[in-house]
Amino acid sequence: MSRITTFDTSDVRFPTSLSLDGSDAMNPDPDYSAAYVRVGTDDADGLSGHGFAFTIGRGNDVQVAAIELLRDHVVGRDVEATLADLGGFWRELVHDSQLRWLGPEKGIMHMAIGAVVNALWDLRAKREGKPLWQLLASLTPQELVDLVDFRYLTDALTREEALEILERSVPGRAEREAELLRTGYPAYTTTPGWLGYDDEKLVRLCKQAVADGFTQIKLKVGADRDDDVRRLALARESVGPDVAIAVDANQRWDVADAVEWMAALAPFDIAWIEEPTSPDDILGHAAIARAVAPIPVATGEHVANRVVFKQLLQAEALQVLQIDAARVGGVNENVAILLLAAKFGVRVCPHAGGVGLCEVVQHLAMFDYVAVSATMEERMIEFVDHLHEHFVTPAVVRDGRYLTPTAPGSGAEMFPASIEAALYARA
Amino acid sequence: MSRITTFDTSDVRFPTSLSLDGSDAMNPDPDYSAAYVRVGTDDADGLSGHGFAFTIGRGNDVQVAAIELLRDHVVGRDVEATLADLGGFWRELVHDSQLRWLGPEKGIMHMAIGAVVNALWDLRAKREGKPLWQLLASLTPQELVDLVDFRYLTDALTREEALEILERSVPGRAEREAELLRTGYPAYTTTPGWLGYDDEKLVRLCKQAVADGFTQIKLKVGADRDDDVRRLALARESVGPDVAIAVDANQRWDVADAVEWMAALAPFDIAWIEEPTSPDDILGHAAIARAVAPIPVATGEHVANRVVFKQLLQAEALQVLQIDAARVGGVNENVAILLLAAKFGVRVCPHAGGVGLCEVVQHLAMFDYVAVSATMEERMIEFVDHLHEHFVTPAVVRDGRYLTPTAPGSGAEMFPASIEAALYARA
Repeated sequence: MSRITTFDTSDVRFPTSLSLDGSDAMNPDPDYSAAYVRVGTDDADGLSGHGFAFTIGRGNDVQVAAIELLRDHVVGRDVEATLADLGGFWRELVHDSQLRWLGPEKGIMHMAIGAVVNALWDLRAKREGKPLWQLLASLTPQELVDLVDFRYLTDALTREEALEILERSVPGRAEREAELLRTGYPAYTTTPGWLGYDDEKLVRLCKQAVADGFTQIKLKVGADRDDDVRRLALARESVGPDVAIAVDANQRWDVADAVEWMAALAPFDIAWIEEPTSPDDILGHAAIARAVAPIPVATGEHVANRVVFKQLLQAEALQVLQIDAARVGGVNENVAILLLAAKFGVRVCPHAGGVGLCEVVQHLAMFDYVAVSATMEERMIEFVDHLHEHFVTPAVVRDGRYLTPTAPGSGAEMFPASIEAALYARA
Repeated sequence: MSRITTFDTSDVRFPTSLSLDGSDAMNPDPDYSAAYVRVGTDDADGLSGHGFAFTIGRGNDVQVAAIELLRDHVVGRDVEATLADLGGFWRELVHDSQLRWLGPEKGIMHMAIGAVVNALWDLRAKREGKPLWQLLASLTPQELVDLVDFRYLTDALTREEALEILERSVPGRAEREAELLRTGYPAYTTTPGWLGYDDEKLVRLCKQAVADGFTQIKLKVGADRDDDVRRLALARESVGPDVAIAVDANQRWDVADAVEWMAALAPFDIAWIEEPTSPDDILGHAAIARAVAPIPVATGEHVANRVVFKQLLQAEALQVLQIDAARVGGVNENVAILLLAAKFGVRVCPHAGGVGLCEVVQHLAMFDYVAVSATMEERMIEFVDHLHEHFVTPAVVRDGRYLTPTAPGSGAEMFPASIEAALYARA
């Protein structure tokens, strides 16, 4: 029997605000950061599990401190028993009654749980010698529903309905896995569209994106309407009529603002409008979706948990669901969200970028393809070409597609030297 | 000119789990705690402002650390200018783009902002020599709407509508203030109803509540249905037919559970069902409200922010709105929520208990009576008789009513000796 013996956290920050990479209407100066956790065991295999919460700078120390609150739930556990029941582990963390008060199931505490849950998934995948997507896609429908906490979901999705969805996709798993390994998964790029870039850089990066094989790009909008119209015109001219352009307002608008602004942008053939308003505003998103149709509404990177996703689906408030690897309670909750999306027939286009989000979220989209939705139609994963060099198994995009990872693990592991170099020390 | 010069935080915890005070279906062993902040100035008046976030134990240290993240927004500020524009101060804290990522506007970071905002309100009230309720009720409608951030609210409540609501209540302010000082504000008591108490204690405390003049009590429910039926029967028999009994499930149920469970409890004449399900589940609360009518649905103590309250009102998901002094972004956001409730014609019955929540929230209800809703009809503030002895100006309830506080401040200030005695040191 082996035990979890170490639980090391690190406050890792990159000074990305210096180059305005990642700048948008609500986040003018992000410093991409990770509240990072590494879980080790006394097993002779020497493997460790890695996870993180993503933040944009200030407060990353408090995010690390929240992860530290979970140390006593982790250290000393039986490795085999814990990894064999990660559904039970999830429930233990999320329903710790004193810690639950700090959310419940939202904000810093919930992201901390996500980091730790993901670290154990990384460990399990490494021990089983599989990339995370393949590990998940190898589980039976019964094992997959055991990962999900159906509390607060049963008015929209019961355990039995989830089982049916998964059973439906058992046939063809092997073919889809083979196809995935052969062709990868579609990507789109946000690299050209940061608000802080000037027009010349925007045009150059738009053309580069097309040359690189991307069929969709995304532009940040929402700070100034005339600027947005000018930038959209430049982007459309640069990429031509056949490349899709999504726009992202990063929560900048109220309902009426969103509707008016999108009327001004609609002539540029918009693939979706992302985060038009508060991520908590289910009814607001629904009102916007009705008003801007047929432009789809996309959201998810700041949606706190499966309960809010459930309602966004129930209210027909989104047409593109954007899971995030590090916002909700880790792999388990994202499995629940993928099942909800499948139940409602809504496509999933994961949010990525930041630090390590591409590396991890690709596994969830690929698992979805093999074992849940069984389709890649109109689906793609966001790609931003920043900071991948710090990861042991970096995400790789070629010709507009993520290459399917084959290395064991979740993709979250950073090089010790990168962590060391970016360790934050309060000035 | 004076400046804010000190910002002291304390991790204060009381071992309430030892007596099962505060035990409910989701929180079996709370240790009532405060992440406490004290703001001092270099003014000769020697006054300080006090605020806190309320937690139930583990993680209170991280809640304190989140408050510390706001130190640089506070220390060094011009006291007069800051207190004269607390609306601007609120926006500065809530829209700090890097910190916002940690919510947004929810969980540990948002509660930290609430603590700091409330501390500045406490300071302002002391400097003006008024209890907080009276300070707020002395502001003009224009000054009050300047406190509110209408972002994400305008589809339900515009600044102009809020002004109209406040203007309507300007006549009669003086009479209502005089009445409030004479009669106080109605209270109800949760003291008899904690789940951890045995039947004998339940009956004894029910009878005591009636003897103490309360016209409503509240029982925790949701752990075991047969137990709840037995406890409700005992409580109803103990208080007689004329005392109202509310029940509180503390988020224990899914939608269908709530509907079925309430069918079993309905014969006992239930005043409201509180927190039947997840505080994030607006559509779930709406479905429950339709199914259990005419029993009103109450919620709010865990509702993260004004955007969720807006939707609960839009969806007719609650009939009793329970503001909390220390969950949302402080006084400013609670002013927004009171205005939303007035717009939708929904009564407000604040959540209290814990540490210091009675002390602070009474000011918000009393302000509402004088300057917003202008009514106490069917309204009452929760009262739990725990831990008041640690506060410099403790809440006082007599004959089932809160006595209107007249001491300057918000009520949040604890005795230094109490803080010192309850300071938490990690074992």
